[in-house]
Amino acid sequence: MATAQSEELYKSFLTKDDFFGYEDPEKYAKYIPKLEAYRQRLADAIPKELATTLPKPRDELIAEQFDAVDYLYKAKLLSPKEFEITDTPAATLLQNIASGKWTSVEVFKAFAKRAILAHQFTNCAMEFFVDEGLKRAEELDAYYKEHGKTMGPLHGMPISVKEHVAYKGKPLHACYVGLIDNIATEDSVGLQIMKKMGAVFYVRTSQPQTLMQLDSGNNFTGLTKNPFNLLLSSGGSSSGEGALVAFGGSVIGLGSDIGGSIRAPAAYSGCHGFRPTTRRISLMGGASALGGQESVPAVAGPFARTVDDIDLWMKHYINDGKPWDYDTWSIPMPWREVTKPNAKDITIAVIRDDGLVRPSPPIRRGLNEVVSKLKAAGVNVIEFTPPNTKLAYETINNMYTCDGNYKQREMLAESGEPLTKLTKWNLNFGQGSKHYTVYENRSLNVIRDELRTEYNDYMVKNKVDFILSPAYNNVAPHSEEVYNWSYTALFNILDLPTLAFQTGLRQDPELDVWTEEDKKHVYRSDLEQLENENYKPDEFKGAPIALQLSARRYFDEEVIGAGKLIVDDILKVDLLKQ
Amino acid sequence: MATAQSEELYKSFLTKDDFFGYEDPEKYAKYIPKLEAYRQRLADAIPKELATTLPKPRDELIAEQFDAVDYLYKAKLLSPKEFEITDTPAATLLQNIASGKWTSVEVFKAFAKRAILAHQFTNCAMEFFVDEGLKRAEELDAYYKEHGKTMGPLHGMPISVKEHVAYKGKPLHACYVGLIDNIATEDSVGLQIMKKMGAVFYVRTSQPQTLMQLDSGNNFTGLTKNPFNLLLSSGGSSSGEGALVAFGGSVIGLGSDIGGSIRAPAAYSGCHGFRPTTRRISLMGGASALGGQESVPAVAGPFARTVDDIDLWMKHYINDGKPWDYDTWSIPMPWREVTKPNAKDITIAVIRDDGLVRPSPPIRRGLNEVVSKLKAAGVNVIEFTPPNTKLAYETINNMYTCDGNYKQREMLAESGEPLTKLTKWNLNFGQGSKHYTVYENRSLNVIRDELRTEYNDYMVKNKVDFILSPAYNNVAPHSEEVYNWSYTALFNILDLPTLAFQTGLRQDPELDVWTEEDKKHVYRSDLEQLENENYKPDEFKGAPIALQLSARRYFDEEVIGAGKLIVDDILKVDLLKQ
Repeated sequence: MATAQSEELYKSFLTKDDFFGYEDPEKYAKYIPKLEAYRQRLADAIPKELATTLPKPRDELIAEQFDAVDYLYKAKLLSPKEFEITDTPAATLLQNIASGKWTSVEVFKAFAKRAILAHQFTNCAMEFFVDEGLKRAEELDAYYKEHGKTMGPLHGMPISVKEHVAYKGKPLHACYVGLIDNIATEDSVGLQIMKKMGAVFYVRTSQPQTLMQLDSGNNFTGLTKNPFNLLLSSGGSSSGEGALVAFGGSVIGLGSDIGGSIRAPAAYSGCHGFRPTTRRISLMGGASALGGQESVPAVAGPFARTVDDIDLWMKHYINDGKPWDYDTWSIPMPWREVTKPNAKDITIAVIRDDGLVRPSPPIRRGLNEVVSKLKAAGVNVIEFTPPNTKLAYETINNMYTCDGNYKQREMLAESGEPLTKLTKWNLNFGQGSKHYTVYENRSLNVIRDELRTEYNDYMVKNKVDFILSPAYNNVAPHSEEVYNWSYTALFNILDLPTLAFQTGLRQDPELDVWTEEDKKHVYRSDLEQLENENYKPDEFKGAPIALQLSARRYFDEEVIGAGKLIVDDILKVDLLKQ
Repeated sequence: MATAQSEELYKSFLTKDDFFGYEDPEKYAKYIPKLEAYRQRLADAIPKELATTLPKPRDELIAEQFDAVDYLYKAKLLSPKEFEITDTPAATLLQNIASGKWTSVEVFKAFAKRAILAHQFTNCAMEFFVDEGLKRAEELDAYYKEHGKTMGPLHGMPISVKEHVAYKGKPLHACYVGLIDNIATEDSVGLQIMKKMGAVFYVRTSQPQTLMQLDSGNNFTGLTKNPFNLLLSSGGSSSGEGALVAFGGSVIGLGSDIGGSIRAPAAYSGCHGFRPTTRRISLMGGASALGGQESVPAVAGPFARTVDDIDLWMKHYINDGKPWDYDTWSIPMPWREVTKPNAKDITIAVIRDDGLVRPSPPIRRGLNEVVSKLKAAGVNVIEFTPPNTKLAYETINNMYTCDGNYKQREMLAESGEPLTKLTKWNLNFGQGSKHYTVYENRSLNVIRDELRTEYNDYMVKNKVDFILSPAYNNVAPHSEEVYNWSYTALFNILDLPTLAFQTGLRQDPELDVWTEEDKKHVYRSDLEQLENENYKPDEFKGAPIALQLSARRYFDEEVIGAGKLIVDDILKVDLLKQ
């Protein structure tokens, strides 16, 4: 947990934006009753018959680093059939519905129950509408009965979606309190596509204020916690998707990523998350302060518990959904059939340390074990010191804030809401409130393109197929203590398709300690000090250990193919059998 | 030609940039000898044995609206074999080399001669290096002899390239005098790819100062003229490519287009030009003031005299060249096999008038005739009033200048060179020297994306496959009188793949007159008045009449397929038989 010392260090970073004009308690007072009503609606939307009684008050569970996933199985919070349904790979699940073995209703009910449980432990939802989901499942069953076939390739699949993705008729606020009364008039493209294909919706998930955090702090519903250790963060900004999918509350979660917002919560929370190359999955329709910002576009992508499920969703979304019929930014590039490569045919460059912030002991153990197994399987693994990471990180941070935080300020000032700890942090990225000229912004783009060329040249000339790296310099940290984005953001500025995947390993307070050698380390920056001092082995019990795998731009299918090889065959990770 | 009245009207537009800090005669004086040396090098690089004696002094040819293409054939400036070679479609040409029927050297010599002639009439070249081209052709022949096969799919193909595309070891200035001593240290990606595939280079072509004109005015080599009527402009900014390819001086020309710079010179000069969707052909490596500008990216693309040649070049460039190995902006989307559709299966929406500037009589005649023939062939043609064209045009003009002309000013001020008439024009686009904030620039992007969605929705919902439109409100105008970009720029802001194609028709002073009805027209803007008053039937004798065909974003192959249907089958245009 944060010490007085780390709090001081944190504050020393807050020099680029003075927060003038953001907060206004008087304005905010009018919103407090609305926020209370919002939270009450969320509580009221939970069907009592699906909920459980927590084993202890939630505060106590948090304090004792409670493993909610372990408890789910041990306490048998679901029936055997419900476990069977919710721990089935997507392809089989869809097949079981398509063959008539399972109904959409029974599948839906099992997932809805598991989602409610996930929320009770982790606080991952912002909105439940189980009744609508049930009605939809019933309609799907009726359609199936009448036509003898499914409505589309995702017929009956329970899918969860991050709140800032527009859902027609429902609130759309991206955790800006000033937007609390905003109602989406249209579904986002993603929802339109998935609805047409037969998916079932019932929950919208949590995210932080402004979306620009790798954690979950907001003034609507508060923090989302890690299902494997409630003391820790679920990550962010797709905070709820990380926790919900890792807990098994939906088959696929749809999140978005501009600096790590899919990969961080997937990695921390214990599932897999895929950040596709930009412009393959549509992000059209949604709330954000970054409309028209193109230096580093956000990307939508899936969370799942198997890499096969990610492949299946990508294939149907792109090939059947044809997002380019709705969104001209979507490239009509079919999702190619994913081939699992032979281990002996691939070369992976491994990043052990990005030169900015040293990874903590559990991450280093994870990397060591994975590299050993890759080598044992015949993969050609080479060490890679990534060039210009400092320039890359500074440049992307400048890109985030180069409108001088103008739009974020406007949207936050609308309600005068209090700034969360990590909102202050992101407002101080780059040059903070400095307004860039258009020419200065263009110069950032030129730097970005030079970096992309440098990394692409490295991969092409050295025949490197993939880059393996930490998804963060630590396992899931404590809430509101995710300061460094450098490991994930590198792949945003490079725009490389990147899979955050579970290694199957978990933090172990006995094994994962700073060594004597570690203690001699001279911090390369205040950021590294802040991050490294936050890792204290006893406080991260059982946190999932995840890594990232990246390929060249638009080689998304290759990442997924290699992801299957590594996760399923080499590491033999099976998140459906906890 | 410009009247005193039209000059006054032109000047009335110059209110957004005061040109302060651009011109400096003192600074410029130092560059004058360098420019003289540049022009002398160009003159000296023309092998005397390949040149002709002009039938009259060039000024007189210009004054009498001389048709140089007609003269080329009538005066038999080439031998029958040279005509045969230079009027052969690319596929046959490559096949004839690959089969040993023709040598690369004889093919090269024929094109080099025709290119020299093109330059003598139109002033289309900025640099000739016929000796290097010959050496390269000899090497290709030697390779073929030794290995019994070609070096690559473009083995022996003579290709011309616009100057601002970097050519290793040669000057690279984009017609900024301040860059006259700049030497490219690396080939652009396009050149690297084409060199690997066996293409032969020998000429770099003209462009205007700043590249931001649809004409050719510059301080290096002066105006490029229209091969079919030397009084008129060849268009721009790929000015030299338009004139050279239309004259038959290369098989393929490589140009670039940010507001019409491929389509205008192709349309005006009498060949076809294709502006692909962004990010299919690499533009990496080159000089421009717009580095990092992404609101409306420039696009590289080919000029040719047959649509088949364009297809062939696109296929090899993308599928064999793999530009994504060099340039991460290039999308690894293979060039799909182009299918020529059945006329009865396609729907074309026709734009007769964009609501901003009324097309002149020859363009209207061209549209009428083409639409009649399309209908006769069974094509479903529907009338289309394009929405929000004023907003689209204002927005793209704002995008061009939203750095407050900062970078153009810097590059022009380097030498203090005089501003050409149309440089002043483009510096006054949008808000001229007003510096946009990053947020304001982002707001332009949002408008652009809404426009794209509006047009895409129209096409998807109405099952419109293609949009047919004028490529400009006039045929080729007089030099330095291309004011309106709205017809081409619409497809830049929408980013639709667009083919400018020849209809086979030519302006006829008898037929193409303003009618009595026309004379009652109330000008909708000063711009329309300026443009319309410039069209006087007697001064545009024989100017080629061209149109544009667009499809949805990334549906490039469909445009080329339909282009073949329309140009070859329906209009029966054959530019290889003049």
